[in-house]
Amino acid sequence: MAEGQEALLAKIKEQGDIVRSLKAAKESQEKIQQEVSKLLALKAQLGAENAVPQKFTLKTAKGTRDYNPQQMTIRNNVLDKIITVFKRHGAECIDTPVFELKDVLTGKYGEDSKLIYDLKDQGGEILSLRYDLTVPLARYLAMNKINTLKRYHIAKVYRRDNPAMTRGRYREFYQCDFDIAGQYDPMVPDSECLKVVTEILDVIDIGNYVLKVNHRRLLDGMFEACGVPDDKFRSTCSTVDKLDKATWEEVRTEMINEKGVTPEAADRIGEYVRLNGGIDLAEKLMKDEKLAKSKSAIEGLEGIMLLLKYCEILGIKDKILFDLSLARGLDYYTGVIYEAVLTQPIKIGKEEQTVGSIAGGGRYDNLVGMFDSKHKQVPCVGVSIGVERIFSVLEAKLAAGDISVRTSDVDVYVATAQKNFLEERLRVCAELWNAGIKTEHSYKKNPKMLNQLQHCEENRIPLAVVLGESELKRGLVKIRNIVTRQEDEVPRESLVDELQTRLASMNIKQINGPAK
Amino acid sequence: MAEGQEALLAKIKEQGDIVRSLKAAKESQEKIQQEVSKLLALKAQLGAENAVPQKFTLKTAKGTRDYNPQQMTIRNNVLDKIITVFKRHGAECIDTPVFELKDVLTGKYGEDSKLIYDLKDQGGEILSLRYDLTVPLARYLAMNKINTLKRYHIAKVYRRDNPAMTRGRYREFYQCDFDIAGQYDPMVPDSECLKVVTEILDVIDIGNYVLKVNHRRLLDGMFEACGVPDDKFRSTCSTVDKLDKATWEEVRTEMINEKGVTPEAADRIGEYVRLNGGIDLAEKLMKDEKLAKSKSAIEGLEGIMLLLKYCEILGIKDKILFDLSLARGLDYYTGVIYEAVLTQPIKIGKEEQTVGSIAGGGRYDNLVGMFDSKHKQVPCVGVSIGVERIFSVLEAKLAAGDISVRTSDVDVYVATAQKNFLEERLRVCAELWNAGIKTEHSYKKNPKMLNQLQHCEENRIPLAVVLGESELKRGLVKIRNIVTRQEDEVPRESLVDELQTRLASMNIKQINGPAK
Repeated sequence: MAEGQEALLAKIKEQGDIVRSLKAAKESQEKIQQEVSKLLALKAQLGAENAVPQKFTLKTAKGTRDYNPQQMTIRNNVLDKIITVFKRHGAECIDTPVFELKDVLTGKYGEDSKLIYDLKDQGGEILSLRYDLTVPLARYLAMNKINTLKRYHIAKVYRRDNPAMTRGRYREFYQCDFDIAGQYDPMVPDSECLKVVTEILDVIDIGNYVLKVNHRRLLDGMFEACGVPDDKFRSTCSTVDKLDKATWEEVRTEMINEKGVTPEAADRIGEYVRLNGGIDLAEKLMKDEKLAKSKSAIEGLEGIMLLLKYCEILGIKDKILFDLSLARGLDYYTGVIYEAVLTQPIKIGKEEQTVGSIAGGGRYDNLVGMFDSKHKQVPCVGVSIGVERIFSVLEAKLAAGDISVRTSDVDVYVATAQKNFLEERLRVCAELWNAGIKTEHSYKKNPKMLNQLQHCEENRIPLAVVLGESELKRGLVKIRNIVTRQEDEVPRESLVDELQTRLASMNIKQINGPAK
Repeated sequence: MAEGQEALLAKIKEQGDIVRSLKAAKESQEKIQQEVSKLLALKAQLGAENAVPQKFTLKTAKGTRDYNPQQMTIRNNVLDKIITVFKRHGAECIDTPVFELKDVLTGKYGEDSKLIYDLKDQGGEILSLRYDLTVPLARYLAMNKINTLKRYHIAKVYRRDNPAMTRGRYREFYQCDFDIAGQYDPMVPDSECLKVVTEILDVIDIGNYVLKVNHRRLLDGMFEACGVPDDKFRSTCSTVDKLDKATWEEVRTEMINEKGVTPEAADRIGEYVRLNGGIDLAEKLMKDEKLAKSKSAIEGLEGIMLLLKYCEILGIKDKILFDLSLARGLDYYTGVIYEAVLTQPIKIGKEEQTVGSIAGGGRYDNLVGMFDSKHKQVPCVGVSIGVERIFSVLEAKLAAGDISVRTSDVDVYVATAQKNFLEERLRVCAELWNAGIKTEHSYKKNPKMLNQLQHCEENRIPLAVVLGESELKRGLVKIRNIVTRQEDEVPRESLVDELQTRLASMNIKQINGPAK
């Protein structure tokens, strides 16, 4: 490395320290920017990036991971089940780019905006990686002037959060969303979203769960009734949202010390948020003296009652819990909100793991309007399935030996004990492939018989075709059942039929329960 | 906007012009960087991005697009067919993050490196969006010390290229790769890759095609025999690669003027690259006086002959063309290379469209070693299916009315002419959903019968359940066939069975041929 460059690198480090100390001291934005601009100028002087000394570490980016074939099998298996449910409810599929103009994301996520990944300014547009699939959906609806859409979208989103990878929290992770956009009658699409969640959680069979529901208008009315000023509704709401992780005492302290709620108001809120129940609770609250005075509270309660009625008709009443402590973090919800949580820890090997929230969503009627030049609204309600948590539970079960996974679909392996039989193997493989049979063989010219059979066992390939010179001369080949080790001679010319008959009678699964 | 900011914006524009003019004048890198650093400093002064005046344009980022439900149906349909072929050959599925440490991509793409999207330095690692799926595969193999893998990977990749969206060239686009890694016998996995390509192109049925093959060692030997110096092999090779778009005269000029090849050498190359044929051509070239002296040429020719022999056994000989003009752009190929091209323009509506290359790949034995600290090699061969071109052809056919697409899978619509029948509809829907029947109904309380039937026709929903008070009192419901308009009364209690029987006898396709 040139000496001049070393000096430059030292300067960059020094300047970086200055910026960091200013930030730590929470100095004025102006002062920080001034020093940042010096830092950028120094970095630019470094010139082409190949001049930077490279200490190469072989890894994926922080907070990201590869999916290996076992993980992909689990993932695709779960997603297939979810998509089946989405399609059963008539959802169409869309996709949007992984990055958006930064302006599209600006002002949508409140405090969390700092977690957005920006792209480098390489000349041209200023871009950011998508943070969720909801804002791109709203952009899509507004841009294409679409008023009604029932869509699902499964894709990765990006957040520069502190990763907790063992618990399934990554910087790059899947979202799996189902949303209904359109001007419809109250709670009809909303209740269908809840039905969708129950169908998915039932088919994935991950454990007992409860679907908590609440209503943003009721929360607003409750804050109003408790004496919280209008402009503090949202921030008080995000404090209430922490009740699933923190005690009421902690939440109360945050309300008073950080959000400027009076102790009296906080205590009144505290009485409400410990309430949960069914339609009877909603009816009781309708008669609550303080809430009855709030138009929003009445609106919210009427909404909840209608929703609970529809849920009863849909046969999912026993899975729903009206819970006044449910608040949800995001600003954009305007109506019903909901969250599915597992009611008991999951057993993985000999350990138990608490999973928590596994799906969530709600109504957001004003988001699309933020993108429309005339602020035309398209009301929306949707749900996001927490697939990463589901994946991480299943991966832990795999690691603990509770389940086993088959990563390739191969049904037939073409083997031989004979030397110089590669061409014959190729010929048979081509015939099977052309018949649509999932087939493999060794890419070695003269593989050992033992290795070939071992490959079948390791990959749970159910059948092998064993080619031998003497059999072929008699117009025969052997079919070997890998599990039972039984071998049958069949006519070479009816090999395809014979294999198809046998395969049709086998029940080959991708994911199996406890391994023997 | 503050006046100071306006002045600053003017300065930024001015400074931007200076940088652009320096770049246009191909000034020294040092001089350009100096002015770029000034520009960056000015931009940094602008401060937090919310201070930047926002002229909000509702669009996706340049060179990217949304996929609407019709496009997604086409896309998923094509990908499903491709995945079926990949799985038939025993491929497992993996996935890697959308971004990699920039160092992983550095030095892998030659001149094209300038097209890589970098992420902004937000503190932490320096990241770039993936440029293809091959380099991440090599990183994955080296990082996990995997010696053998047959995998497919379907994901979006990113190139800051000039988009030509009508021709299916985007900055964000799908790649669809099948690769075989491992130390195997010559041309066995290579020929299987060609078989995979033919199976895919046959099942997608996009038109007649030819699979051109060549060998990098033969190209090297040819350059050697023609008198091109060693250090000019790669750059001469990328010039030859342009022969699919440019005339020989143009390629010859570039070789001589830009790549420093002598006119005599260029003319000798010109004689070779017009050759193509089958195994007989390879045999003839083995006897070519100039080539016979080159070890690489002989190696390449032997490889080609073995490959062609295996292709004959695999029954795909008539689709393969040994073509000495095939060079492929990427540096990392070390053995066989191939490319599938459509042999005739595709008819779309009344127009004809030339599509060109639709799949390509080859052997790259040294890429994994670039990531291994001990430079341990894992030989690889693979193929990438040009799905974006396939999508764009099918989308054009859709636009021209040559094909039609059904974007949702719904089989049954629950309708009524009765007012206040929402709850009854919900009850029936829940029953059908629980039976796994893909069902929809109106989210309106009192929808008009005509609108409900219209919805069925527009979305090609084959059956409607029509609920009426008088029928229900008699324990009956009507099933309506949307196409024939025939209505049958069936017992309410056997509705699920009746629907399942009818649906089983229908043949409902997602994509149909010419619309009536």
